[in-house]
Amino acid sequence: MYSDIEIARAAQKRPIIEIAAKLNLGSDDLLPYGHDKAKLTHNVVNRLKSGRKGKLILVTSINPTPAGEGKTTTSVGLGDALNKIGKKAVICLREPSLGPNFGMKGGAAGGGKSQVIPMEDINLHFTGDFHAISSANNLLAAMIDNHIHWGNSLRFDTRRISWRRVVDMNDRALRDITIALGGPSNGYPRESGFDISVASEVMAILCLAEDLTDLKARLARIIVGYNLDKQPITAADLKADGAMTALLKDALQPNLVQTIENNPVLIHGGPFANIAHGCNSVIATKTALALGDYVVTEAGFGADLGAEKFFNIKCRKAGLSPDAVVVVATIRALKMNGGVPKSELGSGNAEALKKGSSNLIRHIRNVQKFGLPVVVAINHFATDTHEEIAVLNDVCNEAGVKAILCRHWSEGGAGAEDLAYEVAKLADNNDAELQLLYEDNLPLWEKIQTVAREIYGAEQARAEPAVLKQLEQWERDGFGHLPVCMAKTQYSFSVDPTALGAPSGHIVPVREVKLSAGAGFIVAICGNIMTMPGLPRTPAAEHIGLNHNNEIQGLF
Amino acid sequence: MYSDIEIARAAQKRPIIEIAAKLNLGSDDLLPYGHDKAKLTHNVVNRLKSGRKGKLILVTSINPTPAGEGKTTTSVGLGDALNKIGKKAVICLREPSLGPNFGMKGGAAGGGKSQVIPMEDINLHFTGDFHAISSANNLLAAMIDNHIHWGNSLRFDTRRISWRRVVDMNDRALRDITIALGGPSNGYPRESGFDISVASEVMAILCLAEDLTDLKARLARIIVGYNLDKQPITAADLKADGAMTALLKDALQPNLVQTIENNPVLIHGGPFANIAHGCNSVIATKTALALGDYVVTEAGFGADLGAEKFFNIKCRKAGLSPDAVVVVATIRALKMNGGVPKSELGSGNAEALKKGSSNLIRHIRNVQKFGLPVVVAINHFATDTHEEIAVLNDVCNEAGVKAILCRHWSEGGAGAEDLAYEVAKLADNNDAELQLLYEDNLPLWEKIQTVAREIYGAEQARAEPAVLKQLEQWERDGFGHLPVCMAKTQYSFSVDPTALGAPSGHIVPVREVKLSAGAGFIVAICGNIMTMPGLPRTPAAEHIGLNHNNEIQGLF
Repeated sequence: MYSDIEIARAAQKRPIIEIAAKLNLGSDDLLPYGHDKAKLTHNVVNRLKSGRKGKLILVTSINPTPAGEGKTTTSVGLGDALNKIGKKAVICLREPSLGPNFGMKGGAAGGGKSQVIPMEDINLHFTGDFHAISSANNLLAAMIDNHIHWGNSLRFDTRRISWRRVVDMNDRALRDITIALGGPSNGYPRESGFDISVASEVMAILCLAEDLTDLKARLARIIVGYNLDKQPITAADLKADGAMTALLKDALQPNLVQTIENNPVLIHGGPFANIAHGCNSVIATKTALALGDYVVTEAGFGADLGAEKFFNIKCRKAGLSPDAVVVVATIRALKMNGGVPKSELGSGNAEALKKGSSNLIRHIRNVQKFGLPVVVAINHFATDTHEEIAVLNDVCNEAGVKAILCRHWSEGGAGAEDLAYEVAKLADNNDAELQLLYEDNLPLWEKIQTVAREIYGAEQARAEPAVLKQLEQWERDGFGHLPVCMAKTQYSFSVDPTALGAPSGHIVPVREVKLSAGAGFIVAICGNIMTMPGLPRTPAAEHIGLNHNNEIQGLF
Repeated sequence: MYSDIEIARAAQKRPIIEIAAKLNLGSDDLLPYGHDKAKLTHNVVNRLKSGRKGKLILVTSINPTPAGEGKTTTSVGLGDALNKIGKKAVICLREPSLGPNFGMKGGAAGGGKSQVIPMEDINLHFTGDFHAISSANNLLAAMIDNHIHWGNSLRFDTRRISWRRVVDMNDRALRDITIALGGPSNGYPRESGFDISVASEVMAILCLAEDLTDLKARLARIIVGYNLDKQPITAADLKADGAMTALLKDALQPNLVQTIENNPVLIHGGPFANIAHGCNSVIATKTALALGDYVVTEAGFGADLGAEKFFNIKCRKAGLSPDAVVVVATIRALKMNGGVPKSELGSGNAEALKKGSSNLIRHIRNVQKFGLPVVVAINHFATDTHEEIAVLNDVCNEAGVKAILCRHWSEGGAGAEDLAYEVAKLADNNDAELQLLYEDNLPLWEKIQTVAREIYGAEQARAEPAVLKQLEQWERDGFGHLPVCMAKTQYSFSVDPTALGAPSGHIVPVREVKLSAGAGFIVAICGNIMTMPGLPRTPAAEHIGLNHNNEIQGLF
């Protein structure tokens, strides 16, 4: 058994210029970052804008469990497999956040023989996109307090400033802070705090922007707080949008890397899948659709959060329509959904598997509500028994959906060829268009209700009158057409992370709503959502360092 | 008249690989960042370690005034001129900080026809070095509060934590803050604050480290605070040094760019010249000395701060000995030193010039105390009169030093050929070794006194007993051998920024001393030193953005 990093380092990495050549891109189309990473220039992105022709394949999954599902690994394995069977496929993934690397061990670039390289770089600074996002976010924050310091001509109500600073670090001590202490030369004291950078609206904006002009327009619309008449104050009011755009100019260009089988991967953007929409950038996805015949992409967490928002937010806004959807499941995770504790996952338990499969079936039915063809990828683990595999196949057959056993973790693309053939067939034969779950003109509260009932299987969503009043106010202010970005636990269809399987008839309490006017959605917060993680008692950072070859160790 | 950015954009920029080829470096020696920037790999840096042969030339200046001196511009012009007269010269500069770009207009990559390109990139994110430094600094900060949150087994006295967070932004509201508010899950509340990233000890460490091993050892020695027995707690105690090294691994590699005349420039590191030592990295300087026959480098602010610390800290620690020193002066700035207000600098005033030249002469004498040959570069302005130029020449001749009129700002390297010939002659004929101003074993307070008397012309330095007691404690703790890093205003030889010319007999009050155990110096703070700038009433950010060609405007 080799570790992920050992497999990655043993890979025959090709110069990134050779990977680009597979996509008919030349040296002038690239901004290299080292010899194994490159950005595609704004020029090539603009040139390719009109040439979209590829089939779009979404990889999503059952609700995540501690047993592991392998959504990124399956996206990579499927991409490699499509290339292996002679299709020209491009993989589109999200960039991982730097901070969490120092908390719990584990990177985010696939695993086993289905990985993206160079994994150390991708997991650390990569091409600096997240640093640029942090800088743009924090410039806006500095300009707010500076404006107030110099006379507050916009009449900020300093009790109603919603814009927070960010840092790409798990730092719980920054969640709630008091700033501008120390006397007149430091400004006017007020309460505020830091989020992790991936929770920033700037991140969501970067991922939804169509080009630099759209990026600037979205940044300009960001609402940072309210004045003493309760009227919104925007980044444009502070004249911050231009400088923020300048800071993000390079970051808006998608990043090209490769799988360990030397197939092209665009990794670009990585908004949190709770407070934001959890998908890679629109620019990367659209560029990939012009470069490849098949584009494999993924959305964060389970299909209830990631896929729903991929469809209702990203696809709606970007005019995208997927041609096939892969729902990833593991027998281990379904057994957990069936009540088996993690310590007992090593032994066969067909009954629990059958019971827990309700989670998978609900996700399948949900995706089908969007009018899209679905296939199940069973991400194989060595502990899976023949009986269990047969049971899961039966369950899926009964549900009218094909389930395909995949061994890409241990075999690379060769282990996912069956899945690749099926996905290609589904996508090639698909002539359905994405059916959005709700129309733009549905009232905001009805949009929330629709997701709660149709996707979560809830009886209804409920909120205090203040929340409903806020939504109505936003409708009067011209924001009623926006989609809703649901923020709830990723572990369950309900707001209770311990309610596994397929709970129904529950209540979805909407605690708070937030307007992301720049990103273009209303965030509905259901339960407690963490926008700044903390480090554990023994952070992974304690074991990260360089080995005797000056290679990074302990990160994976 | 073209603006700096117009001149820079009109330059015939060559691919960075061609610039590297001039230094006999190949593609494998580089990590490209785009086509016009590259890092030299750790491999090539290590390979070149034994091959130092070039002559080292320090460019320093009179005390800065609002009239402008042009130290970076002169460094670039001299480098171009040396190449023009057939010498193989490499220029070594500091990286500019991102934050100040959004405050006052003006980049930091030279000016006129003596510039380094791509100036937009250099002034913004460049190759991400400062972001890596911020991340490493803030990981250490997060690990401190995380350690306390989980039980504080190192017994931190939370009133005596000196390590602060950093951000590369001018954000006065972060100078004094209270963190970890909001209840038990956010940690133990305490007072803290943010500095700008260039003021971080991590920045100074990166610039003084000899290689990755030395970098890690220095990071390990950082003292972050004290325990309840007043014993120091280090980054090593928190096991943070390995992960910090991993975060800084790429950043430790020097960055290669070019002048608009296509000559090689290494831009690497940029510590504040007040709280830290204000020089580019030791690694870049040493690598350049192996690549070129002449290396032109600069130190921050005037010679009283920058050059003194270049010699007494950087050269002492790195075993470097400059072969010639250029003191840059402008007639405008010397007239200001002679009492002329900025509004009247346009008209000739030989008397004021003569009077203000006392500042220049003091700096010359100071540099000569280090046993090094000196030449004065008069950085020409269109408003300089013939009479004034003659006066300044006379003043320098009387002082026994050659003054050379340079027109590199308007003419590029061709305008500094006379200077180049003189510098090359001085360096070629130099057989003196650098004379350090004080020995390692001089008591710390005597080191401070020596700089105050010998360099600042002061009667003496003075401090409260607590400061002297602290210095004695550090001597007992084994830090007595460290050099002192003086932190005082850059505008005067005294601590009064309005005392121009060559004040003498003054008192230098040492308000506070700080131990930078990782960087390896004792900071002596004389007067008020700002470690987090603020934005002005109308920040430059308001006018920064993209033009119709999507080029950055308003930055310069």
